[in-house]
Amino acid sequence: MEREAALKLVKEQLTEHRYQHTLGVMETAISLANQYGADVKKAELAAIFHDYAKFRPKEEMKEIIVSQGFPTDLLDYNSELWHAPVGAYLVEKEAGITDSDVLDAIRFHTSGRPGMTLLEKIIYLADYIEPGRHFPGVDEVRDMAKENLDRALLKAVQNTILFLMKKNQTVYPDSFYTYNDLVKNRGID
Amino acid sequence: MEREAALKLVKEQLTEHRYQHTLGVMETAISLANQYGADVKKAELAAIFHDYAKFRPKEEMKEIIVSQGFPTDLLDYNSELWHAPVGAYLVEKEAGITDSDVLDAIRFHTSGRPGMTLLEKIIYLADYIEPGRHFPGVDEVRDMAKENLDRALLKAVQNTILFLMKKNQTVYPDSFYTYNDLVKNRGID
Repeated sequence: MEREAALKLVKEQLTEHRYQHTLGVMETAISLANQYGADVKKAELAAIFHDYAKFRPKEEMKEIIVSQGFPTDLLDYNSELWHAPVGAYLVEKEAGITDSDVLDAIRFHTSGRPGMTLLEKIIYLADYIEPGRHFPGVDEVRDMAKENLDRALLKAVQNTILFLMKKNQTVYPDSFYTYNDLVKNRGID
Repeated sequence: MEREAALKLVKEQLTEHRYQHTLGVMETAISLANQYGADVKKAELAAIFHDYAKFRPKEEMKEIIVSQGFPTDLLDYNSELWHAPVGAYLVEKEAGITDSDVLDAIRFHTSGRPGMTLLEKIIYLADYIEPGRHFPGVDEVRDMAKENLDRALLKAVQNTILFLMKKNQTVYPDSFYTYNDLVKNRGID
Protein backbone atom coordinates (compact mmCIF):
# COMPACT_ATOMS: atom_id res chain seq x y z
CA MET A 1 0.00 0.00 0.00
CA GLU A 2 1.28 3.45 -0.88
CA ARG A 3 1.96 6.01 1.81
CA GLU A 4 -0.88 8.39 0.92
CA ALA A 5 -3.50 5.64 0.88
CA ALA A 6 -2.26 4.28 4.19
CA LEU A 7 -2.21 7.69 5.82
CA LYS A 8 -5.74 8.36 4.61
CA LEU A 9 -6.99 5.16 6.25
CA VAL A 10 -5.20 5.89 9.50
CA LYS A 11 -6.24 9.55 9.71
CA GLU A 12 -9.86 8.48 9.98
CA GLN A 13 -9.04 6.40 13.07
CA LEU A 14 -7.02 8.92 15.06
CA THR A 15 -7.24 12.26 16.78
CA GLU A 16 -5.24 15.04 15.11
CA HIS A 17 -2.72 14.87 17.96
CA ARG A 18 -2.22 11.15 17.51
CA TYR A 19 -2.04 11.55 13.72
CA GLN A 20 0.80 14.06 14.11
CA HIS A 21 2.52 11.56 16.41
CA THR A 22 2.08 8.90 13.72
CA LEU A 23 3.74 11.14 11.13
CA GLY A 24 6.66 11.58 13.52
CA VAL A 25 6.94 7.83 14.04
CA MET A 26 6.86 7.34 10.27
CA GLU A 27 9.71 9.78 9.61
CA THR A 28 11.77 8.36 12.48
CA ALA A 29 11.15 4.75 11.46
CA ILE A 30 12.19 5.47 7.86
CA SER A 31 15.33 7.15 9.09
CA LEU A 32 16.21 4.26 11.42
CA ALA A 33 15.45 1.72 8.69
CA ASN A 34 17.84 3.50 6.34
CA GLN A 35 20.51 3.72 9.02
CA TYR A 36 20.28 0.12 10.21
CA GLY A 37 19.48 -1.60 6.92
CA ALA A 38 15.84 -2.59 7.45
CA ASP A 39 13.18 -2.67 4.75
CA VAL A 40 12.18 0.98 4.47
CA LYS A 41 8.75 0.35 2.95
CA LYS A 42 7.84 -2.11 5.70
CA ALA A 43 9.05 0.32 8.35
CA GLU A 44 6.95 3.07 6.80
CA LEU A 45 3.84 0.92 6.66
CA ALA A 46 4.20 -0.46 10.20
CA ALA A 47 4.80 3.04 11.56
CA ILE A 48 1.76 4.47 9.80
CA PHE A 49 -0.50 1.74 11.15
CA HIS A 50 1.06 1.18 14.59
CA ASP A 51 -1.66 3.07 16.50
CA TYR A 52 -4.52 2.15 14.18
CA ALA A 53 -6.59 0.64 17.04
CA LYS A 54 -5.66 3.25 19.68
CA PHE A 55 -9.13 4.73 19.96
CA ARG A 56 -11.24 1.63 19.64
CA PRO A 57 -13.62 1.06 22.56
CA LYS A 58 -12.17 -1.11 25.31
CA GLU A 59 -15.05 -3.56 25.00
CA GLU A 60 -14.31 -4.11 21.31
CA MET A 61 -10.61 -4.64 22.02
CA LYS A 62 -11.39 -7.07 24.82
CA GLU A 63 -13.74 -9.01 22.58
CA ILE A 64 -11.08 -9.29 19.86
CA ILE A 65 -8.40 -10.42 22.33
CA VAL A 66 -10.65 -13.22 23.53
CA SER A 67 -12.14 -14.27 20.19
CA GLN A 68 -8.79 -14.21 18.36
CA GLY A 69 -7.03 -16.27 21.00
CA PHE A 70 -4.57 -13.50 21.90
CA PRO A 71 -2.94 -13.91 25.34
CA THR A 72 -5.79 -13.23 27.73
CA ASP A 73 -3.40 -12.23 30.52
CA LEU A 74 -3.33 -8.93 28.62
CA LEU A 75 -6.74 -8.28 30.18
CA ASP A 76 -5.14 -8.36 33.66
CA TYR A 77 -2.76 -5.56 32.72
CA ASN A 78 -3.05 -1.94 31.62
CA SER A 79 -5.48 -1.51 28.73
CA GLU A 80 -2.86 0.69 27.04
CA LEU A 81 -1.31 -2.61 25.93
CA TRP A 82 -4.35 -3.83 24.09
CA HIS A 83 -4.28 -1.61 21.01
CA ALA A 84 -1.05 -3.22 19.77
CA PRO A 85 -2.21 -6.82 19.15
CA VAL A 86 -5.73 -5.62 18.36
CA GLY A 87 -4.21 -3.17 15.88
CA ALA A 88 -2.31 -5.95 14.12
CA TYR A 89 -5.58 -7.84 13.76
CA LEU A 90 -7.65 -4.89 12.53
CA VAL A 91 -4.98 -3.64 10.12
CA GLU A 92 -5.07 -7.01 8.42
CA LYS A 93 -8.85 -7.26 8.48
CA GLU A 94 -9.78 -3.69 7.60
CA ALA A 95 -6.78 -2.38 5.66
CA GLY A 96 -5.79 -5.64 4.00
CA ILE A 97 -2.18 -5.60 5.18
CA THR A 98 -0.96 -9.20 5.19
CA ASP A 99 2.81 -8.84 5.58
CA SER A 100 3.54 -10.66 8.83
CA ASP A 101 6.71 -8.63 9.47
CA VAL A 102 4.65 -5.46 9.41
CA LEU A 103 1.85 -6.96 11.48
CA ASP A 104 4.30 -8.24 14.12
CA ALA A 105 5.95 -4.84 14.35
CA ILE A 106 2.51 -3.41 15.14
CA ARG A 107 1.68 -6.30 17.49
CA PHE A 108 4.77 -5.87 19.67
CA HIS A 109 5.28 -2.12 19.53
CA THR A 110 4.09 -1.56 23.11
CA SER A 111 5.19 -4.63 25.07
CA GLY A 112 8.21 -5.67 23.06
CA ARG A 113 9.08 -9.37 23.13
CA PRO A 114 12.21 -11.47 23.46
CA GLY A 115 13.91 -11.97 20.12
CA MET A 116 12.53 -8.82 18.51
CA THR A 117 13.24 -8.48 14.80
CA LEU A 118 15.07 -5.45 13.45
CA LEU A 119 11.78 -4.05 12.17
CA GLU A 120 10.08 -4.57 15.54
CA LYS A 121 12.93 -2.79 17.29
CA ILE A 122 12.72 0.13 14.89
CA ILE A 123 8.99 0.64 15.37
CA TYR A 124 9.22 0.33 19.18
CA LEU A 125 12.03 2.85 19.27
CA ALA A 126 10.55 5.24 16.70
CA ASP A 127 7.37 5.34 18.78
CA TYR A 128 9.50 6.27 21.80
CA ILE A 129 11.76 8.93 20.27
CA GLU A 130 9.77 10.57 17.45
CA PRO A 131 10.22 14.36 17.50
CA GLY A 132 6.86 15.01 19.18
CA ARG A 133 7.88 13.09 22.30
CA HIS A 134 8.93 15.19 25.27
CA PHE A 135 9.69 13.47 28.58
CA PRO A 136 12.70 13.02 30.84
CA GLY A 137 15.34 10.81 29.27
CA VAL A 138 14.05 10.90 25.69
CA ASP A 139 17.01 12.95 24.40
CA GLU A 140 19.45 10.43 25.82
CA VAL A 141 17.68 7.65 23.92
CA ARG A 142 17.59 9.77 20.75
CA ASP A 143 21.35 10.22 20.96
CA MET A 144 21.88 6.51 21.59
CA ALA A 145 19.72 5.63 18.58
CA LYS A 146 22.21 7.43 16.34
CA GLU A 147 24.97 5.12 17.53
CA ASN A 148 23.55 1.77 18.60
CA LEU A 149 20.00 0.53 18.06
CA ASP A 150 20.10 -2.17 20.74
CA ARG A 151 21.53 0.12 23.37
CA ALA A 152 18.85 2.72 22.65
CA LEU A 153 16.15 0.08 22.74
CA LEU A 154 17.41 -1.30 26.06
CA LYS A 155 17.34 2.20 27.53
CA ALA A 156 13.82 2.80 26.23
CA VAL A 157 12.58 -0.50 27.68
CA GLN A 158 14.32 0.22 31.00
CA ASN A 159 12.83 3.71 31.17
CA THR A 160 9.37 2.36 30.44
CA ILE A 161 9.61 -0.27 33.19
CA LEU A 162 11.08 2.19 35.71
CA PHE A 163 8.33 4.69 34.89
CA LEU A 164 5.66 2.11 35.65
CA MET A 165 7.41 0.86 38.79
CA LYS A 166 7.79 4.35 40.19
CA LYS A 167 4.02 4.73 39.82
CA ASN A 168 3.47 1.33 41.51
CA GLN A 169 1.86 -0.01 38.35
CA THR A 170 2.04 -3.58 37.14
CA VAL A 171 4.38 -4.38 34.25
CA TYR A 172 3.36 -6.82 31.53
CA PRO A 173 5.72 -9.83 31.72
CA ASP A 174 6.72 -9.55 28.05
CA SER A 175 8.29 -6.19 28.86
CA PHE A 176 10.40 -7.81 31.57
CA TYR A 177 11.34 -10.65 29.25
CA THR A 178 12.32 -8.13 26.58
CA TYR A 179 14.55 -6.36 29.08
CA ASN A 180 16.28 -9.58 30.14
CA ASP A 181 16.64 -10.66 26.52
CA LEU A 182 18.27 -7.39 25.50
CA VAL A 183 20.64 -7.53 28.48
CA LYS A 184 21.63 -11.10 27.71
CA ASN A 185 22.17 -10.52 24.01
CA ARG A 186 23.58 -7.05 23.94
CA GLY A 187 26.94 -6.46 22.38
CA ILE A 188 26.96 -3.13 24.09
CA ASP A 189 29.62 -2.72 26.75
CA MET B 1 16.06 -26.56 67.30
CA GLU B 2 17.11 -24.08 69.96
CA ARG B 3 18.72 -20.80 69.03
CA GLU B 4 22.18 -21.58 70.38
CA ALA B 5 22.43 -24.92 68.61
CA ALA B 6 21.25 -23.36 65.35
CA LEU B 7 23.66 -20.46 65.61
CA LYS B 8 26.52 -22.86 66.29
CA LEU B 9 25.75 -24.81 63.11
CA VAL B 10 25.49 -21.68 61.02
CA LYS B 11 28.60 -19.98 62.41
CA GLU B 12 30.71 -22.79 60.96
CA GLN B 13 29.36 -22.05 57.47
CA LEU B 14 29.80 -18.29 57.38
CA THR B 15 32.40 -15.57 57.48
CA GLU B 16 32.34 -13.44 60.62
CA HIS B 17 30.88 -10.56 58.61
CA ARG B 18 28.08 -12.72 57.29
CA TYR B 19 27.48 -14.20 60.74
CA GLN B 20 26.99 -10.71 62.16
CA HIS B 21 24.55 -10.02 59.32
CA THR B 22 22.70 -13.20 60.26
CA LEU B 23 22.38 -12.05 63.88
CA GLY B 24 20.92 -8.78 62.59
CA VAL B 25 18.43 -10.63 60.39
CA MET B 26 17.46 -12.79 63.37
CA GLU B 27 16.75 -9.83 65.66
CA THR B 28 14.85 -8.02 62.91
CA ALA B 29 12.82 -11.09 61.92
CA ILE B 30 11.82 -11.74 65.56
CA SER B 31 10.75 -8.14 65.91
CA LEU B 32 8.71 -8.21 62.67
CA ALA B 33 7.16 -11.56 63.65
CA ASN B 34 6.03 -10.09 66.97
CA GLN B 35 4.68 -7.00 65.28
CA TYR B 36 2.80 -8.73 62.48
CA GLY B 37 1.69 -11.87 64.32
CA ALA B 38 3.88 -14.51 62.69
CA ASP B 39 5.33 -17.56 64.46
CA VAL B 40 8.33 -16.11 66.27
CA LYS B 41 10.24 -19.39 66.61
CA LYS B 42 9.89 -20.12 62.90
CA ALA B 43 11.01 -16.60 62.04
CA GLU B 44 14.04 -17.01 64.31
CA LEU B 45 15.00 -20.34 62.78
CA ALA B 46 14.53 -19.25 59.16
CA ALA B 47 16.55 -16.09 59.79
CA ILE B 48 19.41 -17.99 61.42
CA PHE B 49 19.63 -20.42 58.51
CA HIS B 50 18.75 -18.11 55.59
CA ASP B 51 22.36 -17.75 54.36
CA TYR B 52 23.48 -21.25 55.34
CA ALA B 53 24.63 -22.08 51.78
CA LYS B 54 26.07 -18.64 50.97
CA PHE B 55 29.68 -19.79 50.77
CA ARG B 56 29.25 -23.17 49.14
CA PRO B 57 31.22 -23.59 45.91
CA LYS B 58 29.28 -22.67 42.80
CA GLU B 59 29.82 -26.11 41.33
CA GLU B 60 28.23 -27.77 44.36
CA MET B 61 25.25 -25.41 44.20
CA LYS B 62 24.83 -26.03 40.49
CA GLU B 63 24.94 -29.77 41.01
CA ILE B 64 22.26 -29.58 43.71
CA ILE B 65 19.99 -27.37 41.58
CA VAL B 66 20.14 -29.90 38.76
CA SER B 67 19.98 -33.10 40.83
CA GLN B 68 17.15 -31.86 43.05
CA GLY B 69 15.03 -30.70 40.14
CA PHE B 70 15.07 -27.04 41.17
CA PRO B 71 14.25 -24.58 38.37
CA THR B 72 17.27 -24.83 36.10
CA ASP B 73 16.63 -21.36 34.67
CA LEU B 74 18.32 -20.24 37.90
CA LEU B 75 21.57 -21.22 36.23
CA ASP B 76 20.99 -18.59 33.52
CA TYR B 77 20.79 -15.84 36.13
CA ASN B 78 23.09 -14.36 38.75
CA SER B 79 24.64 -17.03 40.97
CA GLU B 80 23.73 -14.87 43.97
CA LEU B 81 20.28 -16.42 43.61
CA TRP B 82 21.46 -19.99 44.02
CA HIS B 83 22.20 -20.07 47.75
CA ALA B 84 18.54 -19.61 48.63
CA PRO B 85 17.03 -22.82 47.20
CA VAL B 86 20.28 -24.70 47.79
CA GLY B 87 20.22 -23.46 51.38
CA ALA B 88 16.70 -24.79 51.91
CA TYR B 89 17.89 -28.18 50.68
CA LEU B 90 21.08 -28.29 52.77
CA VAL B 91 19.42 -27.00 55.92
CA GLU B 92 17.03 -29.94 55.74
CA LYS B 93 19.72 -32.45 54.86
CA GLU B 94 22.50 -31.29 57.15
CA ALA B 95 20.72 -29.54 60.01
CA GLY B 96 17.59 -31.70 60.04
CA ILE B 97 15.13 -28.80 59.74
CA THR B 98 11.94 -30.22 58.24
CA ASP B 99 9.42 -27.43 58.80
CA SER B 100 8.31 -26.52 55.27
CA ASP B 101 7.34 -22.99 56.32
CA VAL B 102 10.89 -22.38 57.51
CA LEU B 103 12.43 -24.06 54.47
CA ASP B 104 10.28 -22.02 52.06
CA ALA B 105 11.23 -18.80 53.83
CA ILE B 106 14.87 -19.73 53.19
CA ARG B 107 14.12 -20.86 49.62
CA PHE B 108 12.48 -17.60 48.56
CA HIS B 109 14.42 -15.06 50.58
CA THR B 110 16.35 -13.75 47.57
CA SER B 111 13.95 -13.96 44.62
CA GLY B 112 10.66 -13.66 46.41
CA ARG B 113 7.69 -15.31 44.73
CA PRO B 114 4.06 -14.46 44.02
CA GLY B 115 1.83 -15.30 46.96
CA MET B 116 4.55 -15.05 49.59
CA THR B 117 3.53 -16.19 53.07
CA LEU B 118 3.81 -13.85 56.05
CA LEU B 119 6.92 -15.70 57.19
CA GLU B 120 8.52 -15.45 53.74
CA LYS B 121 7.82 -11.72 53.64
CA ILE B 122 9.38 -11.25 57.06
CA ILE B 123 12.60 -13.06 56.18
CA TYR B 124 12.94 -11.26 52.83
CA LEU B 125 12.43 -7.92 54.51
CA ALA B 126 14.58 -8.64 57.58
CA ASP B 127 17.41 -9.58 55.23
CA TYR B 128 16.99 -6.22 53.50
CA ILE B 129 16.68 -3.91 56.54
CA GLU B 130 18.69 -5.54 59.36
CA PRO B 131 20.76 -2.93 61.23
CA GLY B 132 24.00 -3.85 59.46
CA ARG B 133 22.61 -2.87 56.06
CA HIS B 134 23.71 0.52 54.73
CA PHE B 135 22.68 1.55 51.24
CA PRO B 136 20.56 4.26 49.63
CA GLY B 137 16.88 3.81 50.41
CA VAL B 138 17.22 1.34 53.28
CA ASP B 139 16.06 3.82 55.94
CA GLU B 140 12.91 4.53 53.97
CA VAL B 141 12.11 0.80 53.91
CA ARG B 142 12.91 0.51 57.65
CA ASP B 143 10.42 3.26 58.37
CA MET B 144 7.80 1.65 56.14
CA ALA B 145 8.30 -1.70 57.89
CA LYS B 146 7.13 -0.12 61.15
CA GLU B 147 3.82 0.78 59.54
CA ASN B 148 2.98 -1.63 56.75
CA LEU B 149 4.75 -4.88 55.93
CA ASP B 150 3.48 -5.15 52.36
CA ARG B 151 4.35 -1.59 51.50
CA ALA B 152 7.87 -2.04 52.85
CA LEU B 153 8.25 -5.31 50.99
CA LEU B 154 7.06 -3.74 47.72
CA LYS B 155 9.60 -0.96 48.15
CA ALA B 156 12.38 -3.46 48.87
CA VAL B 157 11.50 -5.54 45.80
CA GLN B 158 11.27 -2.39 43.64
CA ASN B 159 14.63 -1.13 44.90
CA THR B 160 16.24 -4.49 44.21
CA ILE B 161 14.92 -4.61 40.64
CA LEU B 162 15.85 -0.96 39.96
CA PHE B 163 19.35 -1.58 41.35
CA LEU B 164 19.87 -4.47 38.93
CA MET B 165 18.35 -2.61 35.98
CA LYS B 166 20.55 0.43 36.55
CA LYS B 167 23.54 -1.91 36.32
CA ASN B 168 22.13 -3.49 33.13
CA GLN B 169 21.89 -6.86 34.87
CA THR B 170 19.26 -9.49 34.22
CA VAL B 171 16.46 -9.88 36.74
CA TYR B 172 15.17 -13.33 37.70
CA PRO B 173 11.54 -13.56 36.52
CA ASP B 174 10.26 -14.53 40.00
CA SER B 175 11.36 -11.12 41.23
CA PHE B 176 9.27 -9.46 38.54
CA TYR B 177 6.32 -11.71 39.31
CA THR B 178 6.68 -10.85 43.00
CA TYR B 179 6.59 -7.16 42.14
CA ASN B 180 3.44 -7.51 40.01
CA ASP B 181 1.81 -9.68 42.66
CA LEU B 182 2.46 -7.16 45.41
CA VAL B 183 1.17 -4.31 43.26
CA LYS B 184 -1.99 -6.21 42.37
CA ASN B 185 -2.74 -7.30 45.92
CA ARG B 186 -1.61 -4.31 47.90
CA GLY B 187 -4.05 -2.58 50.16
CA ILE B 188 -1.66 0.30 50.34
CA ASP B 189 -2.88 3.50 48.76
